[in-house]
Amino acid sequence: MLTIVVDAMGGDNAPACVVDGVVEALRESSNRFEILLIGQDEKVAPLLRQHDTAGLNLRFMHAPEVVTMEDVPATAVKAKQESSLVLGLKLCKSKEADAFVSAGNTGAMMAASLFVLGRLPGVLRPTIYAYFPRLGEGLTNIVDVGANVDCKPENLVQFAEMLTIYQRYAAKIDNPVVGLLNIGEEEGKGPDYLKQAWNLLQEAHGQGKINFIGNIEGHDILAGKATIVVCDGLVGNTILKFGESIPHFLGALFKPALEKLVMAGKLDQNSAALAGQAFKGIFEPFDVEKFGGVPFLGVDGISIVGHGRSSSRAIKNMIYMAEHMIEQRVNERIAEMLS
Amino acid sequence: MLTIVVDAMGGDNAPACVVDGVVEALRESSNRFEILLIGQDEKVAPLLRQHDTAGLNLRFMHAPEVVTMEDVPATAVKAKQESSLVLGLKLCKSKEADAFVSAGNTGAMMAASLFVLGRLPGVLRPTIYAYFPRLGEGLTNIVDVGANVDCKPENLVQFAEMLTIYQRYAAKIDNPVVGLLNIGEEEGKGPDYLKQAWNLLQEAHGQGKINFIGNIEGHDILAGKATIVVCDGLVGNTILKFGESIPHFLGALFKPALEKLVMAGKLDQNSAALAGQAFKGIFEPFDVEKFGGVPFLGVDGISIVGHGRSSSRAIKNMIYMAEHMIEQRVNERIAEMLS
Repeated sequence: MLTIVVDAMGGDNAPACVVDGVVEALRESSNRFEILLIGQDEKVAPLLRQHDTAGLNLRFMHAPEVVTMEDVPATAVKAKQESSLVLGLKLCKSKEADAFVSAGNTGAMMAASLFVLGRLPGVLRPTIYAYFPRLGEGLTNIVDVGANVDCKPENLVQFAEMLTIYQRYAAKIDNPVVGLLNIGEEEGKGPDYLKQAWNLLQEAHGQGKINFIGNIEGHDILAGKATIVVCDGLVGNTILKFGESIPHFLGALFKPALEKLVMAGKLDQNSAALAGQAFKGIFEPFDVEKFGGVPFLGVDGISIVGHGRSSSRAIKNMIYMAEHMIEQRVNERIAEMLS
Repeated sequence: MLTIVVDAMGGDNAPACVVDGVVEALRESSNRFEILLIGQDEKVAPLLRQHDTAGLNLRFMHAPEVVTMEDVPATAVKAKQESSLVLGLKLCKSKEADAFVSAGNTGAMMAASLFVLGRLPGVLRPTIYAYFPRLGEGLTNIVDVGANVDCKPENLVQFAEMLTIYQRYAAKIDNPVVGLLNIGEEEGKGPDYLKQAWNLLQEAHGQGKINFIGNIEGHDILAGKATIVVCDGLVGNTILKFGESIPHFLGALFKPALEKLVMAGKLDQNSAALAGQAFKGIFEPFDVEKFGGVPFLGVDGISIVGHGRSSSRAIKNMIYMAEHMIEQRVNERIAEMLS
């Protein structure tokens, strides 16, 4: 049976929503795996007592230290060796567990995963991607979204290769489509590192490793032109954060516009409320909770990080994601392709 | 009296909407300036005949060649010396005219402006910015948006300095605020070239040249944290094109959501139409037409380029923008700050 370690201390709503998510996952899956919850005893134990955990495949392990959102990633990993983050990953390294899940400090998770688990054979730099909404069916991921700034062309190609494996086997996308985010569609556009990346991606395409459609532009992301949008971590991180700010921005404009129509007697309260709900609904594709989190691709183990705002539902989905990655042998397949 | 050269052949709707825009500008401004319309006689003359141009400060000049949207910028400028684009800019260079306005091929405009007009003293690289919507009053510009990929730190600082001058004198922003677009707010974040840019921007701030608030992130753009968002052309171009794709993307989700409510008998047709109009209205801040276009900052002359989709209103506003830049001595002030 698989053992998944869950960081009780990670995330803005931890440990309460982590405990809830863990219990839900075990109940819903009928104890299909074992969960090892790790965190500060004094904070987690009282929460566990609020649940009926009898018969659940749930163990608890005390970790005295906590890596916070404010901790500087590289320093935190070295200074807080007794944290749930570091101890949890060490259990994966020693094969006492199969995967680690946390909604904690992303930078620290990345640093600790790399430091404790190391890289898969052939991987130059592990990476992290993000989900984006799109028109039509399917899935859009952007890679990298902040783990790697100053990418070399060969890094970008590996990101495309690793995410192709992930999408094909873990996300059930039959034919992942890779686009290189650039300032123009034509070959030969953009800075030198993207021109070189274009050549290498074309080469990988020729070898049947990926399905590369060439350069794509900013407006092609939401249009769903590619399932894998490849870019440097600075570009990806900026687009991601910009995208996350859109619902609030537009909501702040739409709400008063509806209120004005109500005040003018043109729209009744009920219709305005319905329109407001429909408006909120269009941002559902922006909901990252259904995916839970994202794995670090390229580390020698399974390490999944969630948004700081993760709910119990997100935690639960991250646990399923871990299970699925193991079953689908995603890491073995990545190592096969890259080495 | 000022003479503004307008490229009759530039833009998707040229020459018809250019002719309309020119006539409107002269009528509305009561002939405050002279306009020299330049383009292919056989295409422009019939359109001019449709207007009553008697008494307008309008001259026409024939240019046999046309730079199209498909032309490769660098090649086009050398190969099409008899184009409206190159001839128009040459009139500015020889001081026979004071400014050049076109809604044509942006890359070719940039190349031709640099080639024909040259740079202002002290300017390393001219740049081009874009408008972004924001919450609250004021104005947000992003610089660079595609003219310069692979920026050096000193280029980014000059972009901030030039746009500070432009906003202060031509856009009437009392205190332009500069933010450096990065993956995190803290000092020391991001790739090396941004760390170095941070230092140089801080230095320029200390010298009173700009008002620098440090690093900003993707979600700070729409929030209006800075009036000047500084980044490499690859990042700016991507964000710009991504942003431009949002209204269509969300409209494609909202329209069927409203229709569904109507079909279900929950919302009447009229209310749905009103909500749909209110929805369209929230994208008005995305309307670049009111600004018309953007000037190339840093070239030794005034060269303003508009969106390919420019309407007659956009052309008219670009003409006013040219007039305003001359009156406010924007280029002289940039040269003073940078040299």
